[in-house]
Amino acid sequence: MAYLNDHYLKLQAGYLFPEIARRVREFCHANPEAAKRLIRCGIGDVTEPLPPAVIAAMHHAVDELSVRETFRGYGHEQGLESLREQITEHDYRARGIEIAPDEIFISEGSKSDCGYILDILGDRNRIAITDPVYPVYVDTNVMVGHTGRAGEAGRYEGITYLPCRAANDFVPELPSEQVDIIYLCFPNNPTGAVASREQLSRWVEYAREHESIILFDAAYEAYISDPAIPHSIYEIPGALECAVEFRSFSKNGGFTGVRCGFTVMPKTLMARASDGRKLPLHSLWHRRWSTKANSVSYPVQRGAEAIYTDAGQQQVRQLIDHYMGNARILREAVEGAGLKVYGGVNAPYIWVETPSGLTSWQMFDRMLNELNVVITPGSGFGACGEGFFRISAFNSRENAEEVGRRLAKL
Amino acid sequence: MAYLNDHYLKLQAGYLFPEIARRVREFCHANPEAAKRLIRCGIGDVTEPLPPAVIAAMHHAVDELSVRETFRGYGHEQGLESLREQITEHDYRARGIEIAPDEIFISEGSKSDCGYILDILGDRNRIAITDPVYPVYVDTNVMVGHTGRAGEAGRYEGITYLPCRAANDFVPELPSEQVDIIYLCFPNNPTGAVASREQLSRWVEYAREHESIILFDAAYEAYISDPAIPHSIYEIPGALECAVEFRSFSKNGGFTGVRCGFTVMPKTLMARASDGRKLPLHSLWHRRWSTKANSVSYPVQRGAEAIYTDAGQQQVRQLIDHYMGNARILREAVEGAGLKVYGGVNAPYIWVETPSGLTSWQMFDRMLNELNVVITPGSGFGACGEGFFRISAFNSRENAEEVGRRLAKL
Repeated sequence: MAYLNDHYLKLQAGYLFPEIARRVREFCHANPEAAKRLIRCGIGDVTEPLPPAVIAAMHHAVDELSVRETFRGYGHEQGLESLREQITEHDYRARGIEIAPDEIFISEGSKSDCGYILDILGDRNRIAITDPVYPVYVDTNVMVGHTGRAGEAGRYEGITYLPCRAANDFVPELPSEQVDIIYLCFPNNPTGAVASREQLSRWVEYAREHESIILFDAAYEAYISDPAIPHSIYEIPGALECAVEFRSFSKNGGFTGVRCGFTVMPKTLMARASDGRKLPLHSLWHRRWSTKANSVSYPVQRGAEAIYTDAGQQQVRQLIDHYMGNARILREAVEGAGLKVYGGVNAPYIWVETPSGLTSWQMFDRMLNELNVVITPGSGFGACGEGFFRISAFNSRENAEEVGRRLAKL
Repeated sequence: MAYLNDHYLKLQAGYLFPEIARRVREFCHANPEAAKRLIRCGIGDVTEPLPPAVIAAMHHAVDELSVRETFRGYGHEQGLESLREQITEHDYRARGIEIAPDEIFISEGSKSDCGYILDILGDRNRIAITDPVYPVYVDTNVMVGHTGRAGEAGRYEGITYLPCRAANDFVPELPSEQVDIIYLCFPNNPTGAVASREQLSRWVEYAREHESIILFDAAYEAYISDPAIPHSIYEIPGALECAVEFRSFSKNGGFTGVRCGFTVMPKTLMARASDGRKLPLHSLWHRRWSTKANSVSYPVQRGAEAIYTDAGQQQVRQLIDHYMGNARILREAVEGAGLKVYGGVNAPYIWVETPSGLTSWQMFDRMLNELNVVITPGSGFGACGEGFFRISAFNSRENAEEVGRRLAKL
């Protein structure tokens, strides 16, 4: 008799974005005229075409696969060495961080990696997750049985939630209890907050003191404009002994549909076996990849590599400037409408307090019905997101300006 | 204190193919002249360029991503609907099988899916695995704790091994004990054996009677030349209630470096929750995909779709004919050398008995040192693989002919 994984039955009704999609579909069906005016600022999906350097590199790689002499089959399980070298050089050495190419694992995106990392971690770790949070961190822990059932406000038993509120600048305080695995994401999705060097240092210190591991999601690092803000957790001394970092090409190169990202797994990062031995996680992670995957599509990896060329870097800069120009327009419009706003300066997300006591979903419905704008309700990201909503700056300039005009009517 | 997943520590020394790579590297380093003559028939990696229809489709898709109007970001979590429709039409309806597009999940390859499927299955299932076997099935079960430690001949406690020998035509007999999850792969890697309709029917009957689930790996179905042999487990009545099927574009379209495959998860497939309820696995699998992944690279999916065009089908046919032409040459050469040979008729793998009592690794070393040909030692696939070796037909015609000539010297 085959048994299923019961932990899946604990999961709440649905992943946030499918639920938004469902409500939008219903609205469009009921209001075909308004549907034509609809502007989507909900899901954090890029809208602008790929950088020309990426396009050229992908075409070239496809051509290589069309000729026997340059055809490539299975690649290195960790990804193209040349791509990993570019990463170590541009993303790390340029910031004074020494990461070896064999500490980089190319993957189909950081969303997947945030889930896969649990493969190599044990069952007895206490998990700490910020609130609000990218739902994937929570759901993947539920799936593997690291939590109990969901209770009030959708919070799961067994997880230590770290509240992020205006009072702490949306950067969590250290917990009073021992936690073993800590998810941090800066620049933050959904709040758009960033963490200072000092704030991150406190977390690294905590992790080293408590033998905890920080899972640092840096998917939005390219949006940091303040030179004082760290782009990588490894800018903090000691982090190579206590942190895994996830990076993505989705939001810098616009790879949401192309799919590529990477994980940094330092060889100096240790965890305990049940018998108390301290062992490096790198060998487990390597074993996981060589057993479960076959690296990432060759043309995709060549496209990612092109991001690191001079032309690629310049083109990515233009993309970021475009989206952050949208963010400024949206931020100003929200402020103009008299709402309290956070984020949108070092991140492509704007985090807004709902007016006059509306819940997040009430605000979602109001924005949809009155302004025909899709936003993301803050409560979808956790209990502390209630009373907020997120506006994504990923859009055309035209749409951002139009949303700005509509917001003035709020 | 962060704990690691102890089950990883039970894994044997190394995944088979990295170990082969290591020995080959050492040989080449020590014998630079012989290294120039080296021909690799070890790993099952294709050598011929992608079909022109695939190349054209990938170029077109890359171009779409270069323009705002046709740019695409996040795709449908199960993959492009048009690709899933082609699959249901060509791979299933054409064989009288009704599969709905939402029962298809496009992935980055069947190797990954064979591991991921364990995410949604419970911990108390008894796992049955053929011997010899593709090592991924075993290792992924070890990783999630479905086994005890490895004992003699590398066999893990807690797994029911199903011996595949010449005496049973390399198709396992039904077990005498209850097993809940059964891995079957036909055409088989590594033995090149196929299972008849009658043989598969016995397994489907067993699974239905015991409420077991068959995980059917059909990655090599395109190599079947005998019209009586089923390409899909779903050609067997009742299989839609007891089987998951894994398919790959690696070996038909030559996608080993492009990465694409799919899983069929019928909505009629049920498993038990701990409380005894029977629930469909489809919703768990869907939830797993929408939470952990973001579908497959858009140009890759368009490339896969091109396999189903008339031109694509014809070009794939040519590729298969090429590799199966190699298989015939190699098979005849091995027979000519007086060795006992299996497979290579409906599969791109030739399974050969080692001569005069040599072990599989001794034969590997002999082939490497004397003929400068890399094969795969049968014992790397399991205890019952001892005394065999596998020759892969994935090569150029020139290389296949040269290996044929060298085999004559054995």
